[in-house]
Amino acid sequence: MLLEHGYHGLGVQALLDAAHTPKGSFYHHFVDKEDFALQVVDQYMEQVHSALDLCLGDESLRPLKRIRRFFELTEESYGREGYLGCLLGGLGQELSGTNEVFRQKIEACFSQIADRTARCLDEAKQVGDLPAGSNPQAMANLLVDCWEGAALRSRLQGDPAPLNTMLDFYFHSAAGE
Amino acid sequence: MLLEHGYHGLGVQALLDAAHTPKGSFYHHFVDKEDFALQVVDQYMEQVHSALDLCLGDESLRPLKRIRRFFELTEESYGREGYLGCLLGGLGQELSGTNEVFRQKIEACFSQIADRTARCLDEAKQVGDLPAGSNPQAMANLLVDCWEGAALRSRLQGDPAPLNTMLDFYFHSAAGE
Repeated sequence: MLLEHGYHGLGVQALLDAAHTPKGSFYHHFVDKEDFALQVVDQYMEQVHSALDLCLGDESLRPLKRIRRFFELTEESYGREGYLGCLLGGLGQELSGTNEVFRQKIEACFSQIADRTARCLDEAKQVGDLPAGSNPQAMANLLVDCWEGAALRSRLQGDPAPLNTMLDFYFHSAAGE
Repeated sequence: MLLEHGYHGLGVQALLDAAHTPKGSFYHHFVDKEDFALQVVDQYMEQVHSALDLCLGDESLRPLKRIRRFFELTEESYGREGYLGCLLGGLGQELSGTNEVFRQKIEACFSQIADRTARCLDEAKQVGDLPAGSNPQAMANLLVDCWEGAALRSRLQGDPAPLNTMLDFYFHSAAGE
């Protein structure tokens, strides 16, 4: 609901109605809507890290294929939600202009994903699947950023095509797949 | 203010206060906040098309340089606003999950930018600056999408670096600059 409606567009009452939960329960678990949304982001990131563990830890694949598999899994999860894009991108766009807590939180999430991706890109470089002069950290941030733009366009179109086009381009061009 | 606060985060009263305008004037010009925001998007797109006219029409530059110049001009305008990213991306993320008018509006804006960019990429292909097998329409959409992701990261970091990294990557990798 947070991804679909956005932070300000989602009322606490609508949440309570959807969860068949009385208001007292909500405020027992969460200080306020901001606290709720920050905890949703934490849960979202737990899923992200699980998917990263699964994909980047799969040594049966070459390092670049592990990274691509992670983004393909992410695309599958977007699909289950009707291609509404990425919760991090949505909250980051909506809130980062005025809410420093969310700005730092969302930036930290992207940095975590980029850092783990960078370590795998570095492994690709070590085994010769990337040019020796590659900068894994810069390439990882670039991948996360381009992915977020493609996720927005996928949300606007309700279609996975922008995500696939972006991955094909990145792994073909930057990583020489 | 719409870019900084987001659509739902921006109250009409805050707008009136900033513009030193009475409420009656606002509702004389705009049916409601949605009408206001749609007209802001129209004005934003007038500026975008002017910048596209200026850059893509500059035949002293090779076609790919014209496109890069447009995105560099856009980056300069982001800088004047403190790197808050792109209004289209912000409204698209926040509203497209629940508001079909904005979803279609923002998608149409991106399509317009991509279509004009595609015509210039096609010119690059005709003069041999892109491989003969290139797909200008797909490359144009990809550029717009990756730009939007970089604009989000630029907003989160308050820094133009993600924009420059993305342009360097795109024009180096995809367009063989």
